Amino acid sequence: MQFQLTEVFIEQIEQLISEDNRTALTELLQEFHFADVAELLEELNTEDATYLVKLLDSEITSEALMELDDDSRERILDNLSPSEIADELEEMDTDDAADIIAELDDDIQKQVIDHIEDEEHAADIVDLLRYDEDTAGGLMAKELVRVKETWTVAGCVREMRRQAENVTRVHSIYVTDKQGKLKGRLSLKDLLTAPEKSHISDIYIPKVDYVNVHTEGEEVARIMQKYDLEAIPVVDDNGILVGRVTIDDIVDFIKEEAEKDYQMAAGISEDVEADDSIWQLTRARLPWLILALIGGFVSVSVLGTFSGAMADHAALFFFVPLIAAMAGNVGVQSSAIVLQGLANDSLKGSLFKRLIKEVLLSLLNGLILSIILVVGGMFLLGLDLLFGVTIAISLISVIVTAALIGTFVPIMLDKRGIDPAMATGPFITTSNDICGILIYFTIAKLILGF
Amino acid sequence: MQFQLTEVFIEQIEQLISEDNRTALTELLQEFHFADVAELLEELNTEDATYLVKLLDSEITSEALMELDDDSRERILDNLSPSEIADELEEMDTDDAADIIAELDDDIQKQVIDHIEDEEHAADIVDLLRYDEDTAGGLMAKELVRVKETWTVAGCVREMRRQAENVTRVHSIYVTDKQGKLKGRLSLKDLLTAPEKSHISDIYIPKVDYVNVHTEGEEVARIMQKYDLEAIPVVDDNGILVGRVTIDDIVDFIKEEAEKDYQMAAGISEDVEADDSIWQLTRARLPWLILALIGGFVSVSVLGTFSGAMADHAALFFFVPLIAAMAGNVGVQSSAIVLQGLANDSLKGSLFKRLIKEVLLSLLNGLILSIILVVGGMFLLGLDLLFGVTIAISLISVIVTAALIGTFVPIMLDKRGIDPAMATGPFITTSNDICGILIYFTIAKLILGF
Repeated sequence: MQFQLTEVFIEQIEQLISEDNRTALTELLQEFHFADVAELLEELNTEDATYLVKLLDSEITSEALMELDDDSRERILDNLSPSEIADELEEMDTDDAADIIAELDDDIQKQVIDHIEDEEHAADIVDLLRYDEDTAGGLMAKELVRVKETWTVAGCVREMRRQAENVTRVHSIYVTDKQGKLKGRLSLKDLLTAPEKSHISDIYIPKVDYVNVHTEGEEVARIMQKYDLEAIPVVDDNGILVGRVTIDDIVDFIKEEAEKDYQMAAGISEDVEADDSIWQLTRARLPWLILALIGGFVSVSVLGTFSGAMADHAALFFFVPLIAAMAGNVGVQSSAIVLQGLANDSLKGSLFKRLIKEVLLSLLNGLILSIILVVGGMFLLGLDLLFGVTIAISLISVIVTAALIGTFVPIMLDKRGIDPAMATGPFITTSNDICGILIYFTIAKLILGF
Repeated sequence: MQFQLTEVFIEQIEQLISEDNRTALTELLQEFHFADVAELLEELNTEDATYLVKLLDSEITSEALMELDDDSRERILDNLSPSEIADELEEMDTDDAADIIAELDDDIQKQVIDHIEDEEHAADIVDLLRYDEDTAGGLMAKELVRVKETWTVAGCVREMRRQAENVTRVHSIYVTDKQGKLKGRLSLKDLLTAPEKSHISDIYIPKVDYVNVHTEGEEVARIMQKYDLEAIPVVDDNGILVGRVTIDDIVDFIKEEAEKDYQMAAGISEDVEADDSIWQLTRARLPWLILALIGGFVSVSVLGTFSGAMADHAALFFFVPLIAAMAGNVGVQSSAIVLQGLANDSLKGSLFKRLIKEVLLSLLNGLILSIILVVGGMFLLGLDLLFGVTIAISLISVIVTAALIGTFVPIMLDKRGIDPAMATGPFITTSNDICGILIYFTIAKLILGF
């Protein structure tokens, strides 16, 4: 039952566009779900995509535009006039419309807003532009159903029917006092089952979760997940109900955050996709590589200072990549666990206790790995015992240090208000490479003496 | 307005529990949100937590139990009798109840089910146990509101009020034919605004997204996200409506999947949290470290075969960690972008085109990095030009190879039906380390001749 976009179908659409066959196109596409129209738009060239956006009903294309990735949307919007963009925004919820406006150039923004016919809608959009996009204010929509606590159920149902026309989904009905201050909520179910003559003040639920316009998006996501909410009302600093955030915006937010963290861990510094241009991908990937290169320079220098050992203990140098790899891997493991703990707010107990635990854990890992290393090294590579012990002690020390760095650095960054996700991937690997090599040769020097 | 769990509060609760002061505890906690009760239970020892679960109303504790992590929940359930567990399940939605039952030992499962008084509820739970937990059948709940197409609006509202009592949230009303086959849907809003005497068959929306009981959870998540659905009906192989999946289950699913991928990329092979035991954490972290250690052995051997170069070109060995680090970082970057493309189903075009793009991209990155390396190496480290050129050519070759491996391996694994997330983190780093060192020394040998 799922729609599947085929090559044949795309060619058929392209053919119809080149023939300017508006009737056939409208007939073919009018029953489509907006998400499918969006998929189709992604596959067409900008000119054809723009043609379809102009042709089809704004009710569908406005939703489809929201589903496109930023680049495709920008390319299409560049080909639309301010009044055509305004037509699309007219059909959008205020939060989506505000997101689109924010992507436009300043001079076009004003023209587009002036072209929006519904003045209340335009005013709501302008109002939303004031908020930072990662706050509840930036995530919320103005569309919601609100009733006053003094109304009767019958009056409320009448009023609700009127308001609900502009609201795609009614999750909750919010109850306010005369001044517009949020007092509680009511579900559609409650309203359906209440006697018609009772007052809202008798039946509403005075306990309601809410957030302030300035609450960070991450915190909104946390609250909505913790309390399993599908929508949460947003109030301003005076407690006045100004909007609501719905779970679908939060799902996108959670996904984006997870992808950003994943990319950060992989050493990619901008939000890119596989189909972005080579130039964009280079810009996203080069910075961390340059950092790693600089780290590489440092390790070259460190190794250079121990070059005296080469004559008698050449094998020491063969183990450098092994030591560096273990340091890097252990560091990334430790930092990943701490980062997820921080993200889920599940990191409890003192930093000291956590570091002790990490020491014990890495000692255990290090011991097992060292035994494998020594036994393997002596039997497979024919190392002598003293050399084997040197490598083993170094490996344990390097693993413990790497685990401590991987645990300590993200916690410290987080305490100082810096995004702890910085402290993983290339950053942790590079610093642990250098520390690891330094520790390794220092211990070797002490034991073997060179 | 948010609840904040304080040390003082926890101590107060522990004190009241030790005094067996049931009245005070009930009074204090009865107004609590279940998510907050869950937080409290996590902080108490198993005995105290069990005490509270037994004391408080099942309506709250059943929901709180669902919020706990698996270990804490298991510890508490171990201390409850089958009939006490049944009391909790009685209050849960069928999907949650089935998840809990599935966690219990086989012999206890039967006893618990026998103790559930509501026979229909028990039968529904048993029915759900048939499905694999990662399919739509495993994710769905039996609770939903269904109406027949032949009913009138008035009759429908009556019937709906009755059914809605068991359904926490009414997202959509599903319309079926007499045999129970899914025909379409209706929103509460539509029902509120329709004339009382019209028939459901006149007003329902015949287009409805649905999934089969056997559809994979990942696919359900994809569809619900793509079409912005808050609930999706589930049908069996005969098209009979059997349940619905709601967005809150999917949010958890998406989060878990993202965390699993992130941990895999960080070289952690089991789903662990920072607060798990040292033994669990070791078991999750050791396998990939052993793999990296074996990879390290290989690189030791590779370096050993080039030991002849040490006399004349010692500096070659100093650059080993730099080359290995660049190979690892580039490989992880490439694989991360491909993996996200695969996960989002946004990877289009042929494998050949993608590899060509990756070659161009990595050539560009490699060229820039090589220039920095040669200039920096000559000025800072005083390398001679021939040596600098050797390192530069090696670096470019290593980066291009690493990028190709990082792109090719996950795509190949995915085509063969193996989880492509395997091909990142330690696996990619280790194989790229070895390849990188091999390429580096081979090129150096060709240019410098040793």
